[in-house]
Amino acid sequence: MVTSSAARVRADLLPLLGSLGPGGRLPASRALVAKLGVSATTVQQALAALVAEGLVETRPGAGTFVAARPDAAEHERPDTGWQDVTLSASLVQTAGLDEMLRSPTGDGILPMAVGFVATELQADLRLPAALARAARRPGGWLRPPVAGIPQLRSWFAGQLGAEAEDVIITPGGQAALSTVIRAVVPAGESMLFATPSYPGALAVARSHGLVPVPVPEDEDGVRPDLLERAAARTRARLVYLQPTFGNPTGTGLAHHRRAEILDIAHRHGMFVVEDDWARWLGHGAPVPPPLYADDRHGHVITVNSLTKVVAPSLRVGAITARGQVAARIAALRMVDDLFVSGPLQEAAVEVVTAPGWAVYCRRLSRLLGARAAALSSELRAQLPELPFRPPKGGTSLWLGLPTGVDDAAVARRALAHGVTVTAGRHHLAGDQPETWLRLSYSGLPEADYPEAVRRLARAVADVSAGAGQ
Amino acid sequence: MVTSSAARVRADLLPLLGSLGPGGRLPASRALVAKLGVSATTVQQALAALVAEGLVETRPGAGTFVAARPDAAEHERPDTGWQDVTLSASLVQTAGLDEMLRSPTGDGILPMAVGFVATELQADLRLPAALARAARRPGGWLRPPVAGIPQLRSWFAGQLGAEAEDVIITPGGQAALSTVIRAVVPAGESMLFATPSYPGALAVARSHGLVPVPVPEDEDGVRPDLLERAAARTRARLVYLQPTFGNPTGTGLAHHRRAEILDIAHRHGMFVVEDDWARWLGHGAPVPPPLYADDRHGHVITVNSLTKVVAPSLRVGAITARGQVAARIAALRMVDDLFVSGPLQEAAVEVVTAPGWAVYCRRLSRLLGARAAALSSELRAQLPELPFRPPKGGTSLWLGLPTGVDDAAVARRALAHGVTVTAGRHHLAGDQPETWLRLSYSGLPEADYPEAVRRLARAVADVSAGAGQ
Repeated sequence: MVTSSAARVRADLLPLLGSLGPGGRLPASRALVAKLGVSATTVQQALAALVAEGLVETRPGAGTFVAARPDAAEHERPDTGWQDVTLSASLVQTAGLDEMLRSPTGDGILPMAVGFVATELQADLRLPAALARAARRPGGWLRPPVAGIPQLRSWFAGQLGAEAEDVIITPGGQAALSTVIRAVVPAGESMLFATPSYPGALAVARSHGLVPVPVPEDEDGVRPDLLERAAARTRARLVYLQPTFGNPTGTGLAHHRRAEILDIAHRHGMFVVEDDWARWLGHGAPVPPPLYADDRHGHVITVNSLTKVVAPSLRVGAITARGQVAARIAALRMVDDLFVSGPLQEAAVEVVTAPGWAVYCRRLSRLLGARAAALSSELRAQLPELPFRPPKGGTSLWLGLPTGVDDAAVARRALAHGVTVTAGRHHLAGDQPETWLRLSYSGLPEADYPEAVRRLARAVADVSAGAGQ
Repeated sequence: MVTSSAARVRADLLPLLGSLGPGGRLPASRALVAKLGVSATTVQQALAALVAEGLVETRPGAGTFVAARPDAAEHERPDTGWQDVTLSASLVQTAGLDEMLRSPTGDGILPMAVGFVATELQADLRLPAALARAARRPGGWLRPPVAGIPQLRSWFAGQLGAEAEDVIITPGGQAALSTVIRAVVPAGESMLFATPSYPGALAVARSHGLVPVPVPEDEDGVRPDLLERAAARTRARLVYLQPTFGNPTGTGLAHHRRAEILDIAHRHGMFVVEDDWARWLGHGAPVPPPLYADDRHGHVITVNSLTKVVAPSLRVGAITARGQVAARIAALRMVDDLFVSGPLQEAAVEVVTAPGWAVYCRRLSRLLGARAAALSSELRAQLPELPFRPPKGGTSLWLGLPTGVDDAAVARRALAHGVTVTAGRHHLAGDQPETWLRLSYSGLPEADYPEAVRRLARAVADVSAGAGQ
């Protein structure tokens, strides 16, 4: 039996064992008795316990030593098998985000799976100078207001036709989606997704323990008949839409459907998260106003981000919402990460309110539109049998594959042929038999499209012929 | 009965009503028939439906008009009562964080409720210049590696005796806690908290739908007997500890308890989130190594942050973990906000690896230690009956109130007397009858302590006498 004082001495000795290391000699029992102020019996009991555990060994006539590890190499990485049991199966799902962030690159690989806007499309906004100024501002490193600095909230509000007080600044669009979804929908419930959808939003829902319910889109955006049905069947509190321009489709919600969608939300007491990430990425035609502007009853929660239009590392986005839900979202934002870095917010204000901003956005739109048009004609020429709708905004195009052709297999074959594309499955939420690819045109110049589509066509042919499985 | 085509026409007309505005005249039915390409009957049915809804009105002989709003003023803010029903009661709880971030300030108010470190304690780290350099680095605004830039991961790893590959960079410590807790514990379960605890961690757990189980600390940190009991009773997957220096106590886990705590975690297959926020805020004596360094089996997940030691708006922190749990945490970080701004990470690396960093930290420690000592003597002199332990690190002190004296009432009275202090209740998780105050010494210079404690003593006396309820 080990007494409680012996157990304490044992615990006290453990750090000593660690510092002595394997083979290290422990002080004599007498010295331990003196040092620890306990009886010799207690020290003996503690050492006996350590011997029993295999942590120390006595060598008669030589002393007591820290036991050598049975296999030192084994201890370089810990045995963490117990973690499997404690963690159990994971709800956390990143599928689609990994591909977006970790798409393979390399010499000769043509990138059509990127998530961000290539810098050659972006004129110089003097962002470094703006951030340098923000960093030098007196008090600029203190805590900004929790909901964001007033000028930035006003700017986002002005873009949407909202009030500055309804805007909450976030560290980018993904963080905004995470907070909105978790603030509105308790774990275990259903959430509706107009599909094809953004994998990052689906990943938030799944990681939070929600059941995503797909609501198919047609050429005018989400289908009202199916949204009505899904709302009635699931009583979901929230539907995810991309009414301006979608990722992956590059098309949005038709004007004539806006009122009907809001009407469905109103009759079912349902919130709409409007992912308005592509507000500044139209292709030339006037960009439709946000659904937020048509909403009279506080259904629409709009998410914006500057990371696509300005730069990936400008982690600044916004949530705009009215009513009680705005307070709940603001509360969860505080719990999620307190506030967004002041200098990043100040730099963002400076670039978006600079005189060159409108010119910058027009140039970006023109270049994106030219790329979309060029990719569209190349696809029509080389892969005329594959359906797609010409994008009106955003950075990608949604290409249908022949029936029975596996999207992931095509993506793998395409990589083997030297072009990266994204398998469409992560944009869907159900068991649709159709398969699709997402082609991004924001990371590849027009001159490369003939070759990129040639490689893709080969991959489609390979898989159609059964070579890519 | 409204036919489906009439319903569609009704929906098509809604945006027109919006653009015409109240009192606006609709086109004649004939014109609508021509424009919409439907039958006159369909148009009549659609208009009748709109009349029934009160959205349009017909004035015989004059035409059909958009109905005037019954009360225009009422529509300036939407009627969002439906949101209450859809949102239902909120799990999201910010209690304690609000106070930390929104503590009242004003002329003559002595601040002892602040959450951050006053800039006068922080020497010039040339942070603006570091950020300016980072902002101008070629490619500096592109996406950094998802887990963080290698140099910053290495630096955090070196501080803990960990491997760089086990470090994930986060936008501050609060975000780190949010990800760790949600990655490990599913909604609805229990989580253990050594108490008194940090309100931000409790807020994460409550907002995620967890039941916080308090495990009391004594003068040596969390009590092993009660941790053992709590682990056995709840089978919790995770316990929150502040082994280095706690917020609010400023004291940590005694050396002789470290092995025992890890042993309990190991026997119960339990993770430990080690909130190591005050690693660089010791008061002069050597800061104990992180519990992470003693952990052989991957139980400890350590959270660090640079926001306290450097600046609130340097939103850079880290999670360090080994084994399968590290992959799960990395996955959820991606879902939570993708990655941390590159220039902020580069600036952080520059300041913490600059030659002046060690001197900077020593000066900060010395100044914090002097403030803690000065506040301690002032409390002993003016409020000798109130118990506290002298802090060894961090930014605050945990002061016991007389039995039956309400902490929130004292905080209110203290504000009335011109000093802000934090009611201790948000640091606790159960129904402990003892009441406490958190006094921060990081925002107030020593010269003000006699007056601040005088005002606090008056508040305690007021409430003890029944004047403050």
